[in-house]
Amino acid sequence: MLRTKEQYHDDLFAMRSNIYIGGECVGRDDPRLRPGISVLDITFDLARDPEWKGVATAISPVTGEEINRWAHLPQNPHDLIQKQKLIRLGARRAGGCIQRCMGHDAINALAICTREMDDANGTEYHRRFTDYLKVYHQKDLDGCCAQTDSKGDRMKRPSEQQDPDAYLHIVEERKDGIVVSGFKMSITQAPYADEIIALPTRALGEEDRNFAVAFAVPADVEGLKLITRPVWLREKDNPKAGPFCRYGVSDCIVFFDNVFVPRERVFMCGEWQFGRRLALLFADSHRHSYSGCKPAVSDILCGAAALAAEANNIEKASHIKEKLSEFAGAAELAYAAGIAAAVFGEKTASGVFFPNEIYANVGRRLTGETIYHEYNLLTEIAGGIAVTMPFNEDFDKGENKEALERFILRNPKLSPETSCKIWQFVENVGASSMASWYKIAGVHGGGSPIMETIALNIGYNFEDKKRLARYLAGIDESLDDSSMRDSKPDFTGIA
Amino acid sequence: MLRTKEQYHDDLFAMRSNIYIGGECVGRDDPRLRPGISVLDITFDLARDPEWKGVATAISPVTGEEINRWAHLPQNPHDLIQKQKLIRLGARRAGGCIQRCMGHDAINALAICTREMDDANGTEYHRRFTDYLKVYHQKDLDGCCAQTDSKGDRMKRPSEQQDPDAYLHIVEERKDGIVVSGFKMSITQAPYADEIIALPTRALGEEDRNFAVAFAVPADVEGLKLITRPVWLREKDNPKAGPFCRYGVSDCIVFFDNVFVPRERVFMCGEWQFGRRLALLFADSHRHSYSGCKPAVSDILCGAAALAAEANNIEKASHIKEKLSEFAGAAELAYAAGIAAAVFGEKTASGVFFPNEIYANVGRRLTGETIYHEYNLLTEIAGGIAVTMPFNEDFDKGENKEALERFILRNPKLSPETSCKIWQFVENVGASSMASWYKIAGVHGGGSPIMETIALNIGYNFEDKKRLARYLAGIDESLDDSSMRDSKPDFTGIA
Amino acid sequence: MLRTKEQYHDDLFAMRSNIYIGGECVGRDDPRLRPGISVLDITFDLARDPEWKGVATAISPVTGEEINRWAHLPQNPHDLIQKQKLIRLGARRAGGCIQRCMGHDAINALAICTREMDDANGTEYHRRFTDYLKVYHQKDLDGCCAQTDSKGDRMKRPSEQQDPDAYLHIVEERKDGIVVSGFKMSITQAPYADEIIALPTRALGEEDRNFAVAFAVPADVEGLKLITRPVWLREKDNPKAGPFCRYGVSDCIVFFDNVFVPRERVFMCGEWQFGRRLALLFADSHRHSYSGCKPAVSDILCGAAALAAEANNIEKASHIKEKLSEFAGAAELAYAAGIAAAVFGEKTASGVFFPNEIYANVGRRLTGETIYHEYNLLTEIAGGIAVTMPFNEDFDKGENKEALERFILRNPKLSPETSCKIWQFVENVGASSMASWYKIAGVHGGGSPIMETIALNIGYNFEDKKRLARYLAGIDESLDDSSMRDSKPDFTGIA
Amino acid sequence: MLRTKEQYHDDLFAMRSNIYIGGECVGRDDPRLRPGISVLDITFDLARDPEWKGVATAISPVTGEEINRWAHLPQNPHDLIQKQKLIRLGARRAGGCIQRCMGHDAINALAICTREMDDANGTEYHRRFTDYLKVYHQKDLDGCCAQTDSKGDRMKRPSEQQDPDAYLHIVEERKDGIVVSGFKMSITQAPYADEIIALPTRALGEEDRNFAVAFAVPADVEGLKLITRPVWLREKDNPKAGPFCRYGVSDCIVFFDNVFVPRERVFMCGEWQFGRRLALLFADSHRHSYSGCKPAVSDILCGAAALAAEANNIEKASHIKEKLSEFAGAAELAYAAGIAAAVFGEKTASGVFFPNEIYANVGRRLTGETIYHEYNLLTEIAGGIAVTMPFNEDFDKGENKEALERFILRNPKLSPETSCKIWQFVENVGASSMASWYKIAGVHGGGSPIMETIALNIGYNFEDKKRLARYLAGIDESLDDSSMRDSKPDFTGIA
Repeated sequence: MLRTKEQYHDDLFAMRSNIYIGGECVGRDDPRLRPGISVLDITFDLARDPEWKGVATAISPVTGEEINRWAHLPQNPHDLIQKQKLIRLGARRAGGCIQRCMGHDAINALAICTREMDDANGTEYHRRFTDYLKVYHQKDLDGCCAQTDSKGDRMKRPSEQQDPDAYLHIVEERKDGIVVSGFKMSITQAPYADEIIALPTRALGEEDRNFAVAFAVPADVEGLKLITRPVWLREKDNPKAGPFCRYGVSDCIVFFDNVFVPRERVFMCGEWQFGRRLALLFADSHRHSYSGCKPAVSDILCGAAALAAEANNIEKASHIKEKLSEFAGAAELAYAAGIAAAVFGEKTASGVFFPNEIYANVGRRLTGETIYHEYNLLTEIAGGIAVTMPFNEDFDKGENKEALERFILRNPKLSPETSCKIWQFVENVGASSMASWYKIAGVHGGGSPIMETIALNIGYNFEDKKRLARYLAGIDESLDDSSMRDSKPDFTGIA
Repeated sequence: MLRTKEQYHDDLFAMRSNIYIGGECVGRDDPRLRPGISVLDITFDLARDPEWKGVATAISPVTGEEINRWAHLPQNPHDLIQKQKLIRLGARRAGGCIQRCMGHDAINALAICTREMDDANGTEYHRRFTDYLKVYHQKDLDGCCAQTDSKGDRMKRPSEQQDPDAYLHIVEERKDGIVVSGFKMSITQAPYADEIIALPTRALGEEDRNFAVAFAVPADVEGLKLITRPVWLREKDNPKAGPFCRYGVSDCIVFFDNVFVPRERVFMCGEWQFGRRLALLFADSHRHSYSGCKPAVSDILCGAAALAAEANNIEKASHIKEKLSEFAGAAELAYAAGIAAAVFGEKTASGVFFPNEIYANVGRRLTGETIYHEYNLLTEIAGGIAVTMPFNEDFDKGENKEALERFILRNPKLSPETSCKIWQFVENVGASSMASWYKIAGVHGGGSPIMETIALNIGYNFEDKKRLARYLAGIDESLDDSSMRDSKPDFTGIA
Repeated sequence: MLRTKEQYHDDLFAMRSNIYIGGECVGRDDPRLRPGISVLDITFDLARDPEWKGVATAISPVTGEEINRWAHLPQNPHDLIQKQKLIRLGARRAGGCIQRCMGHDAINALAICTREMDDANGTEYHRRFTDYLKVYHQKDLDGCCAQTDSKGDRMKRPSEQQDPDAYLHIVEERKDGIVVSGFKMSITQAPYADEIIALPTRALGEEDRNFAVAFAVPADVEGLKLITRPVWLREKDNPKAGPFCRYGVSDCIVFFDNVFVPRERVFMCGEWQFGRRLALLFADSHRHSYSGCKPAVSDILCGAAALAAEANNIEKASHIKEKLSEFAGAAELAYAAGIAAAVFGEKTASGVFFPNEIYANVGRRLTGETIYHEYNLLTEIAGGIAVTMPFNEDFDKGENKEALERFILRNPKLSPETSCKIWQFVENVGASSMASWYKIAGVHGGGSPIMETIALNIGYNFEDKKRLARYLAGIDESLDDSSMRDSKPDFTGIA
Repeated sequence: MLRTKEQYHDDLFAMRSNIYIGGECVGRDDPRLRPGISVLDITFDLARDPEWKGVATAISPVTGEEINRWAHLPQNPHDLIQKQKLIRLGARRAGGCIQRCMGHDAINALAICTREMDDANGTEYHRRFTDYLKVYHQKDLDGCCAQTDSKGDRMKRPSEQQDPDAYLHIVEERKDGIVVSGFKMSITQAPYADEIIALPTRALGEEDRNFAVAFAVPADVEGLKLITRPVWLREKDNPKAGPFCRYGVSDCIVFFDNVFVPRERVFMCGEWQFGRRLALLFADSHRHSYSGCKPAVSDILCGAAALAAEANNIEKASHIKEKLSEFAGAAELAYAAGIAAAVFGEKTASGVFFPNEIYANVGRRLTGETIYHEYNLLTEIAGGIAVTMPFNEDFDKGENKEALERFILRNPKLSPETSCKIWQFVENVGASSMASWYKIAGVHGGGSPIMETIALNIGYNFEDKKRLARYLAGIDESLDDSSMRDSKPDFTGIA
């Protein structure tokens, strides 16, 4: 099934009220949630657009029917590349974060890890998960992934915390399911998702057994509270503003207050040995997703900067051209890392094709390291006007209207109205509360650079490099080239 | 005279209404201007505080009386160092830009340039300016400097612009004065300044003669319109917020619409040969001022980051310590550049002691290049919470109040209330509209890095370096060490 | 045919003496050329090693026989990825530059451009070139590409130069061929190549017609002088040194002093409109080659740094681990750019599959920008010992031998001899004349970062980004997603 | 007394042979030491040059006579600034490291620490040291500082090392003195110094008591072996080369093999509590010295790059100008840090005026972080010719002489000979073994960036920044401005 956005809205607005904004409980039709819902709308529209069939859709390996690609389990490198492309496509339309990748990454992590747990322990998680996924596909659901715990004292492990709610945990195991409690934080998209999929956030020890828990619940399940922070631009104050101002995002503290999860929806329950694995599967898949969305953010910043240069009539200056070219590097190196992660990915026991962790991590780290610099480039090119320009109303009314139209004209080829829209766009993209969100998410989403560094320290084949150096230094007699021999791209998936 | 802030307010509120916000004409008591006025208040308070006598005050060289240092003409390197110190002191209290330096830098540029014009041409600008300055000192006035023209088409000179108002210019010369028109833009502080001091923004050719104009007018003079954009944090929405939220800033388009300037207040009138000189005198003085305020901004970012690390209980992690130390480098290298600019400054013909342009420029360029990186550091240390934290009201009321108090606790040594204030501060400092203003002003205020690069390309003694290389390469027989011989620090001003 | 290295040597040593070193004419058996020849030996050995069949070899599209891949014309993306892999493999064995890629890149540029010239003008260059290539394949030749002209006054075009030899040019056109003269400079590998392939270095105007010339000649052809600068490590002074010291490189001024080129070997003769195209085809292919060799250089630097950390017993320090992970980023982002260049490459009219220019350029620019930083990392990790360690002989003889064995021991798990070899390797890799060569070639080979920036300014689809911004800003009604629609990976070449 | 360089040579050549190079014992007149001696000659020449009286000389506080400033104990900020100036002056003449600062920094560290030890413990080290210094001043001695121990296993403290010689230590305490053993490494200048001054390299614990030792011995004292690594350019191979090739440096392993030190020359003997203090006093003083020499290195690199740009006739290109301006920033920010360290320095109990540690460390860290980048700039500007240019002899003789003269001409205003010298200089400065030495010393000399980061983490007033943040966040009621109040420049020393 491919829901229309209207069907998505209907389902959403029929849910129980468990959203809190500014100390009050509000419905999912609260206008402050609308900018985020509009982003999700893009994902529903694309899937029904014949032009993007096969990019925005895929054939479900569990139902055999056409599904929205966001719910797909990639089967080969081409699937991963199509996911990357879909993310960039959607993110361009949304003016940034397309939000729905987190559900994709969560179901893939679960598909893989449930199989591995079953193979190791003879459990039946993978069967449960596959049953769940069938429904997910049939109903074209949107899942939000709740991973990051509030963590409490960072110097202590989950089981050592004074307040056990610092990490999501099992409070009670019943025959028919489990009861869970705890805080997840910085969870994007939760207030307008159908489902919340919870995963552990870190490696766990045996004493942390109760914190090894994964499951899916409807987003309005009893006991769940979504304490929400919407970030969006004031569209109503700015009727002439373009699509960029129509889109936005909400983040939540997802507070599980003794939530019951039926057995069939529990996908990990005490397997602390797999805590790190499941956490990383989501993280690495999500880092691969950034190789799709981050290039779109660079595209937008590049476009904003190029328009600003045009408005200032300085497009030909060599230092401007040099700066514009840096966006190309930022966007395409990240995109290339995603491509390499796809063609050097691996087929897991579950059948899911998983991106190569090294390329996923070097790509994500690069984007996390350069995002502030890209905003800096925009600022250097656009000048100070983004924060000193009069308000919209000044251009629309009052005694200075005519003077301001003269004021705003720098490039004789552009009308005052177009010039004005360019500068308002530069402000919205580069100097708004939304810009702060993008900068900070650009550093931390999916793991900040230090997290990728840690992943690389663990996963990169440093021993191969040392062997190479020992050979060249004359310490070892011969060179072991196995790293080169074993590295082969996989091109499956294209007719 | 040292005005109290109350006297300053009285003077301000008695002015003619010529402020425009959002298409409407408002008085100077409009609450949106209050955060900026509060910043100026600090400068009046400091001057009357006995503890800061000699730092916040100086002895006027024209009246012989004690004046606010912001109105002072530095006579020696110590005066420049005291200015730098006062700026850092005030900027720390204001949570950033102290705003009043622009008047200081403008009167110094005029003091020097009027003398040089008179010496060259036999004019009487310096006498006029000195008379003006006497009143300025006697009344403890605050001057705003209007330098940056709106510029129109950047590829054309002032006299080539289709709309002559793209640059401020002389419309008519009368016996008793001149009539001027044009747009100045991105002018900070104008709506709560006593005086507007206008200066040219660039080098001029003979055909640009009418654009070579400098003068001072009251900020509410007939024909002057201040189209204002206030930037400030929503104090009223956040009653528990600290001083940081009380302060703010406004920028203006200063629109001169056939303003008459009496002869005695005209300080340049057609001397196009001095356009570049006067523009650079202000710019270089202002760049030196940044060696005072930018360290204060780094102090604040460093403090915010250190508090965030404390709240997360990760202060001892080596990568956190490394990042914190970067703020020390950013702050103190900029401060050191200001010190060097002072001790290698020069006594001008006017008697004003002027900072060394090389050190002023290398210092300002460094701060312009690193500001985004410093915000990046704060983000890396603080994590994503600055943009995902629930609103203030969620912590104050409603059914999640108690849960959020548990949620916010990470370091057992800090109360929930303190933790909450820390994270709100991190948001206000790092992810607010004020933060966008600071980033963009941090790049462009006083000239962006490319402007300092141009200044260095012109002013730095590259010929000395080439001579050195020619000697070492064996091309020249001997080495001319004159650059070393002539470089002597000046320590005047300390008993 | 796949020559043995011995056959290669025999052919080489039978050539006419036209090598000049230090003012003297020497044979190709001069020991100073041996380190470079040893690098080429690797390429012959690999092609005959069954383990690397299909990587180091390919099936010639012109003869249908198995050839050395260095002489191959890639037919699909997989061929490009195999080339990249072969380069990394060979470069690891050679301790750096494998040198033979330049011939590969030159024949590909000619294969494409001769076809395009013929299609445009009805010439017969492509037939000539294909005939030449058959022999090249049959004899397993190694071609050196002479592209960079000495250029004379950079402010003048080729035809404006006072000395026409500043650019290689046609002196005379005869019925049976052409006579050419001029200087090519910084030409790697020429003194031990079989053939010299000459190409233009820049865009040309109609008046530069005589400078539009491309051809191939034997490296010892009459009139050709190779004024050679060998760079290598003093193996003989260091008998215990490992393979790294056995390899080296030579660069030349290739001086064409009225060289006659028979008609059948002339591949461009006056087609100035194709000057830029042919120059860029070589450059972009060569930039793609860097995505193979530069990762190998990072591998070596990473291995050297990791061994140094082990020798100092500081491998676990967090700042060391962070630095080591930076090599992973440098190597794999460059490699990923090459992979993306391959899968987004294009089939040209000649049948050659050509790497995508955007990915080739963003990848090469990245490596050119980070090479010095990578040596900096090695220095930070290894400490100062690379330039302060006693000479090899001190460890071998004399009264301090025993003391130095104690001195060198820092990690109890390593023998003095191994420690000593590690530090000598660090010196050879990081502080030798070879290191200077690698740093400088790492910036300039195939075009310095500014050249890639220029290529990106021309080739990157900035208009797409501006359209995107205009849509999001509300200036354009709808979004043109054609850039996304048209971007499709090509996975041809794998069964 | 101010020795002539001839007197210095006579003294040097009369010393006992205890220099080892390449496994052999050589005299101090070995030609491989000559380039280093030539550097020291500059320091003797300058002191006797009337033009530099007061810069290169000072009045000894212990003898009251004029001495070489390198032996001076700074009494006020002006003395520190003069030291900085003298270092830049000398380093420019030497083409880089002037080497003699290490003696200056060692005697200052000892002057301060001996007084502090005596004040704490009632010892008489300061009197002994002052007696020693009198002779040092009377004889115009040059002292080399041996600080860095070989350190053995970095994970172990000095007293835990398997081989006690890993750190210099007291073997025996006798009535008339002490016997010491151990390795010091990477010790610059030792083979042509009069005296070796040994200091501890790190903080010590009580169990490390025997490693708390400081003293001075003649450089040829019985039992001392200087295992030497000379780095210099091959002047004899390059008779036309300029002064740059005449200068060089030697580093040593200083091997104390049961060396007896008479009591009067022992300045620390077991005071482990002062180990860190003495180590840091030297380090911080030496870091201040870098604010003199590093600007000279930037001057040289800047000059080389500017000459290369001139030779290529590309001086006006905007990207070249931008790069040249970066040298100005690198040089003058470091110089400014030194100036600030001087004016914010402190008078110690010994009377010595000591540079402010914060400014000394931020300055030194900056130079350590940017040195590779500066060489990168030179490479970008100069192109690849530095490593591909034919040898000197090719330009001097043989059949290609005339052709090469044409080849080398790019700027018609420069002769072939001058062009040739420029490129050879670029090679010598940027691509020689000397260049490797400068890069590595540029990172590590006086402590690598990580060492300055650690010093800043300990010394910087982070608590002040946290207080500021707490005030602005509304956590603390009022602001403690004491850091601003207490920070006062000291301008003593100028009439």
